[in-house]
Amino acid sequence: MRLVRQEGGNRGGVGESVLDLPPQALERIAGEVGTPVFVYSADKIAEQHRALSQALAGISHRIHYSVKANSSLGILRVIRDLGLGVDIVSMGELARVLRAGFSPADIVFSGAGKTCAELEAALECGVGLLNLESEWELEILCRLARDRKPVDVGIRVNPDVTTDTHPYTQTARAGHKFGVPRDQVVDLARRIMRCGNLRLRSLGMHLGSQISQAEPYRRGAACLGELADKLVRMGVDTLASIDVGGGLGISYGPDPALDLGEFRDAVAGVASSRGLALLVEPGRFLLGNSGCLLTRVICRKRSGGRTIVITDAGMNDFLRPSLYGAYHEIRVVAEGAGGGGDASRDHDPVDVVGPNCETGDFLGMGRRLAGAGPGALLAVMGAGAYGFVMSSNYNSRPRAAEVLVREGKYAVIRQRETVEDLMRGETDSPRWVNL
Amino acid sequence: MRLVRQEGGNRGGVGESVLDLPPQALERIAGEVGTPVFVYSADKIAEQHRALSQALAGISHRIHYSVKANSSLGILRVIRDLGLGVDIVSMGELARVLRAGFSPADIVFSGAGKTCAELEAALECGVGLLNLESEWELEILCRLARDRKPVDVGIRVNPDVTTDTHPYTQTARAGHKFGVPRDQVVDLARRIMRCGNLRLRSLGMHLGSQISQAEPYRRGAACLGELADKLVRMGVDTLASIDVGGGLGISYGPDPALDLGEFRDAVAGVASSRGLALLVEPGRFLLGNSGCLLTRVICRKRSGGRTIVITDAGMNDFLRPSLYGAYHEIRVVAEGAGGGGDASRDHDPVDVVGPNCETGDFLGMGRRLAGAGPGALLAVMGAGAYGFVMSSNYNSRPRAAEVLVREGKYAVIRQRETVEDLMRGETDSPRWVNL
Repeated sequence: MRLVRQEGGNRGGVGESVLDLPPQALERIAGEVGTPVFVYSADKIAEQHRALSQALAGISHRIHYSVKANSSLGILRVIRDLGLGVDIVSMGELARVLRAGFSPADIVFSGAGKTCAELEAALECGVGLLNLESEWELEILCRLARDRKPVDVGIRVNPDVTTDTHPYTQTARAGHKFGVPRDQVVDLARRIMRCGNLRLRSLGMHLGSQISQAEPYRRGAACLGELADKLVRMGVDTLASIDVGGGLGISYGPDPALDLGEFRDAVAGVASSRGLALLVEPGRFLLGNSGCLLTRVICRKRSGGRTIVITDAGMNDFLRPSLYGAYHEIRVVAEGAGGGGDASRDHDPVDVVGPNCETGDFLGMGRRLAGAGPGALLAVMGAGAYGFVMSSNYNSRPRAAEVLVREGKYAVIRQRETVEDLMRGETDSPRWVNL
Repeated sequence: MRLVRQEGGNRGGVGESVLDLPPQALERIAGEVGTPVFVYSADKIAEQHRALSQALAGISHRIHYSVKANSSLGILRVIRDLGLGVDIVSMGELARVLRAGFSPADIVFSGAGKTCAELEAALECGVGLLNLESEWELEILCRLARDRKPVDVGIRVNPDVTTDTHPYTQTARAGHKFGVPRDQVVDLARRIMRCGNLRLRSLGMHLGSQISQAEPYRRGAACLGELADKLVRMGVDTLASIDVGGGLGISYGPDPALDLGEFRDAVAGVASSRGLALLVEPGRFLLGNSGCLLTRVICRKRSGGRTIVITDAGMNDFLRPSLYGAYHEIRVVAEGAGGGGDASRDHDPVDVVGPNCETGDFLGMGRRLAGAGPGALLAVMGAGAYGFVMSSNYNSRPRAAEVLVREGKYAVIRQRETVEDLMRGETDSPRWVNL
């Protein structure tokens, strides 16, 4: 039961700035592009990148953006312009990063369920590093790599580390699907060496998402360090990096962010003391608070002593509140009408819910939002990562538009879907085949 | 925490028939169309319709299919051929049912968050019944209905009834967004009459989803009956129907289905004793067990004492296990390879998980599945409703194909998305506008 009512937690003002943009600018975007619309700030992304780079200054490191957080081509261009590499998990993401102009050498391909076709495509384009997650995958890869130039691979290790996050976003516990259990790593490394055409370049991990403490990183990295020593002792002389993955926790409001200094202290020594480079794969850290979801209030009503505000964005646009019970601050960018038969006062808490026919369709419960009457423009904060990428056409709703803002300008980087788009690929007159 | 391990629960055989189709037929579809693919049976849909019709025989009633359960044009054609009406909740669903050839008179338009544009479109095409859910909506409609022919409306009542289902799928409790609280109904009816151009034709409710007991229906229908009497006493002479909504529970395996006889006994009298027709709006009841999701095993691995089977379908294809913790039986249609370094025996329970980079990406945990090695073809049962409609492109995965089977023939009713489709609407070179 995650329909938690989070009383308070919002600032409660009207006409707030969002992503350093004044309300007038946001109203203009909403007016011209319509709602719901995701708005991202290239400047905020650059700011986050700067903070991480500074924390890792002086350490041999490379940052690979985790594409699954937000895979829009417009965003990938921003990432590329910052000089980062990318971390991908599927054929679709491979196509995206190539389209966005990344060099294959700057691509790390991970993922617990890579298909044969995906492995083949990765070899074909020559990705910089292919992270192996199972013996079965190695068998396939070994066969595919024959008669090719040497392929650089890593082992994604499951270090069996507990984190303080939602069970759905913990990925490094024993019994989970991710990575190779630590007691199987040496054996897998032996098989990699025997394969002939593979070079073991990296040991990696991915602990999960939204990790606010450095301690799990310290334990995970220590595990990778010990394994690296073991591999060197058994003759592996190709190791070049320690990949500590992503999961760097940000603050969505009440929750604390990961301290970057503590993060560096937890992971840097393991790599540098062994002459290895540090790989970091942030997604949410770069994008999360660099984007918001603008939505318009459709109506406001009273029921059972609650005040309910129904918006034109719902769980089909932004699934995180429903799926994870995630908290996202909601701001009133521009006030709406006072009408709608609402007898409640402005300081009563309101439930902000979507238009979908499902009680689990909510954006935030029990918030204090002055002026959130019909027509009001709201901003759901922290929607830059795991927002649009998880959106669906549930209830036959076209997916939202995406806008990028940069240095006082804005551009639509993804058009809003149309009702016609919903039916693309469907056939009016199916061709029947005998079974 | 909903990562419940459901040991057992599966039949455990290999080469099982699904939707009355032999494994060879399913292998043929998977081979020709690829996986993951949703397969629906028109015959099963017709069977479910027959069962409900027979239960309601002799009672003046009308069945409207709830489009949000599965809105594919191919399915809507099946529904239309059965002579049913439809229940819709958005502009997108309106476009779909019109494209599928439904007459506007056969459309009921409901939904807690209908926009002004949606109300206008509904009036423009002349839908048979427009269910009002708030005073604010009535204000807008009243204005839009001026200078048009009379518009038939209903009131969707929130009868404040508790059901035995997941909190996300309970929709008729006080404080929820759906419907008009019962103590506001008389007042709203007065306003409807005052509006001049609206005819109040129906009182309705929607209790939620997957309701397995008739009792909530009895209490909800009784509430509607009392309200109908009140309205008649105050001079409403246009009422024609009592709409008891959908939510009719089916069995996904361990859970019991709603008894149709008990359902009829609970709701029919309220309508017939008042000379009103009964409206029923089933979605899942018709589609749920009329479809399955076919998926191929990518790999099988051991970790932390668990056996893990990774399939090519995941939470992006089928969200119900992740979002609701829903149980869906999984059958082995065709055996896979024994390889993959799996030391577990066939009768060990396995976790069936998707390829997405997220621990919450699972189809079923702790199942007994003999022969589920790499390449095996699995069928996730009960995937006909709230399956494809909730799917997304998360992790940049193209959405699955959909296939309809009818009388020994099959047809693709929706093509599998391509990697190119993922980037549709995105711009390589955005047009910048000054803010």
